[in-house]
Amino acid sequence: MSRGKFITLEGGEGVGKSTNLQFITQWLTDRNIPFIQTREPGGTPLAEQLRELLLAKREEIVNPTAELLMVFAARAQHLAQVIVPALERGDWVVCDRFTDATYAYQGGGRELNRAFIEQLEKDVQGELRPDKVLLLDLDPQIGLQRAAHTGAADRFESEHLAFFHRVRAAYRERAEAAPSRYSIVDASQTLPEVQQQLAQELQRLL
Amino acid sequence: MSRGKFITLEGGEGVGKSTNLQFITQWLTDRNIPFIQTREPGGTPLAEQLRELLLAKREEIVNPTAELLMVFAARAQHLAQVIVPALERGDWVVCDRFTDATYAYQGGGRELNRAFIEQLEKDVQGELRPDKVLLLDLDPQIGLQRAAHTGAADRFESEHLAFFHRVRAAYRERAEAAPSRYSIVDASQTLPEVQQQLAQELQRLL
Repeated sequence: MSRGKFITLEGGEGVGKSTNLQFITQWLTDRNIPFIQTREPGGTPLAEQLRELLLAKREEIVNPTAELLMVFAARAQHLAQVIVPALERGDWVVCDRFTDATYAYQGGGRELNRAFIEQLEKDVQGELRPDKVLLLDLDPQIGLQRAAHTGAADRFESEHLAFFHRVRAAYRERAEAAPSRYSIVDASQTLPEVQQQLAQELQRLL
Repeated sequence: MSRGKFITLEGGEGVGKSTNLQFITQWLTDRNIPFIQTREPGGTPLAEQLRELLLAKREEIVNPTAELLMVFAARAQHLAQVIVPALERGDWVVCDRFTDATYAYQGGGRELNRAFIEQLEKDVQGELRPDKVLLLDLDPQIGLQRAAHTGAADRFESEHLAFFHRVRAAYRERAEAAPSRYSIVDASQTLPEVQQQLAQELQRLL
């Protein structure tokens, strides 16, 4: 039996990840492809508890290195308990954010040293990388307007616009550096246009 | 103003850390030395929440790398918010466990790669190391009998004897490799004997 494909959906606030995740999982269902859908940070009870600690707004200033290590702790747990077993049994894995989000939010947004992130990526993931990263790309000013309609802002959503411009730039930089593994999807297009591109990218993985 | 001294108290289960911490802080109080008392994992609201996640017994198997990264996440937060500011304003810091516990529990107990721990130590602490590590050393068979009388066992306390033998060996190995910074205190002695030795070590720091 062959290993499943590992697909991640990435992007900043308000780019339409939820709607497009639904589209992707429906596309897989329609083709009888076995898959799991999961998310980061999270995906196991412990990793979801770490997510809560990461997103909670708090009095104390959260040290950026502490934040980065929590993200990778949740990832190590998620990989060991969920992602690796799924890929090994032949399931596809559709993950809402993964390590590119760490480069974008902690590397770009928080301006942490990229070499430190690379080192942790290697320590935690070994050689495992997504087969395809679907990056929903959008001007953060538009994204934040869209996101503003969906509930109270968490610790990340409460950041300033400059933070989200750095997040977007870091995402794009990674995608542009490895065009075979990344697909940049212009999220300012209409939904049918976005989903036509997503379907093309999925089709290429078969 | 000179930087405060950084003292850590280390040891396995049931070695008498709580009683001897009280002795140390009383010794400092008697000499009008400004100090803070803190602990790891913990010491800030976020780091204490990470401690709860680390100690909780749970259904899912906790990945050892996830555990290690949670420990260093809590440490990064603790250092930034509490330890470094205290030392910089001239306070002594008395900490119930620190990075030697990581080498002992995650390195010795969980048998994680020491080089990985060394790398994280450097990433999170830079050059900062305790000025003095007081290691309460005891045969784990005796320690576990003592600890058994003090409430329900957490996820670490529930480990098997072989785990605690590895913890003790890792602690001793570190202490023996750097005798100027470490003091091994034989915790099988009477309490007055233990505390006489602790007082001598503290006196040398003045």
